[in-house]
Amino acid sequence: MVLKLHGLPMSTSTTRVMICLHEKAQDFELIPVDLFSQENKQPAFLAKNPFGKVPVLEDGELTLFESRAINEYLAQKFKDSGHDLIRPENLNECATVKVWMEVESHQYEPTISPIVYQHFVAPLQGKAPDQTVIDQNLEKLGKVLDVYEARLSGTKYLAGDFYSLADLHHLPYTFYFMKTPWASLINDRTHVKAWWDDISCRPAFEKVAQGMTFGDK
Amino acid sequence: MVLKLHGLPMSTSTTRVMICLHEKAQDFELIPVDLFSQENKQPAFLAKNPFGKVPVLEDGELTLFESRAINEYLAQKFKDSGHDLIRPENLNECATVKVWMEVESHQYEPTISPIVYQHFVAPLQGKAPDQTVIDQNLEKLGKVLDVYEARLSGTKYLAGDFYSLADLHHLPYTFYFMKTPWASLINDRTHVKAWWDDISCRPAFEKVAQGMTFGDK
Repeated sequence: MVLKLHGLPMSTSTTRVMICLHEKAQDFELIPVDLFSQENKQPAFLAKNPFGKVPVLEDGELTLFESRAINEYLAQKFKDSGHDLIRPENLNECATVKVWMEVESHQYEPTISPIVYQHFVAPLQGKAPDQTVIDQNLEKLGKVLDVYEARLSGTKYLAGDFYSLADLHHLPYTFYFMKTPWASLINDRTHVKAWWDDISCRPAFEKVAQGMTFGDK
Repeated sequence: MVLKLHGLPMSTSTTRVMICLHEKAQDFELIPVDLFSQENKQPAFLAKNPFGKVPVLEDGELTLFESRAINEYLAQKFKDSGHDLIRPENLNECATVKVWMEVESHQYEPTISPIVYQHFVAPLQGKAPDQTVIDQNLEKLGKVLDVYEARLSGTKYLAGDFYSLADLHHLPYTFYFMKTPWASLINDRTHVKAWWDDISCRPAFEKVAQGMTFGDK
């Protein structure tokens, strides 16, 4: 039975799962959800995710939401297919992957997402980007990236010398961020830049990036 | 070798780990971190967690931070001790635990924490609580709790008919929230109230709650 992913190929959280599916060499059917007509707030979708957010994964009778939880499930279920993303056989490495997944979730995304939102989404809604919000978050993001720079001077990837979900989860927002005028925050940090160049040219991501046209002219 | 937990018994993220350690029947040494003198921003602490946040767990040579990642590690390492908190032998149940852990992390905490912060912390810093922030988040929290009410009408706990990390992670913030004037948001929802009464009287939590004196007169 083919995996069904409900979402949008421009959405950061949907693409987070799509990249993982490609890394694990899994076929899937992408079922578009029309956010503009609020299809995600209708009963049929709310029955799959009561919070009304994309993505949702259906694997037979199992229905999952929250992109990072979906990816942990995929990484565990298909641990012997494609690239190993969570090191399930090594308790300490697996724990370190989880630590840096939480860093992405609680330190990185909360600072990078308002910048991407203000730069790309606010204008679509007829609002001027709030430069104060952008500036405050650029400062916070710089501090987070200083920690990444030190970390990545010792290991090739965030959780160690192996690519994992901890790295993968950074791809969608960073991809959009690199199209803003502030990409130097990444490019000016030697080890962060090398890490970004490495993870953003993996074939599993390149397949997905083609559809991430949000913000393009 | 005894587990070392660096943190504070009033901190929500430190107590999240302490509760887990008690559930897993693990002895540990709590090493206080003096946040008031910014001990957490000094080199000795930053070497353990470069983001300067509590808690940090040391298990022999392994150093971990981010409370939810620490708890996943403890739940996996000590899966045969104390209460099973992540259902590691059942892939679908384990995935559902992760989904509701992410819900706590991305839907629940971001709405409940500003309320607790404004009510208890702002006055300590000489600021009046911002009632607009409180009201906005009470409205959002009510919507999240509506989903919980529906969910908990079908299963006894968030991930199923078993207590898990998904429930446990709610304890610290909800405990403080129940001391605010808005506890009716929990008490007026029948199934949420029954769930709260159940999870908040577990012995592992009662041991920790004694030290959660923040906001007491």
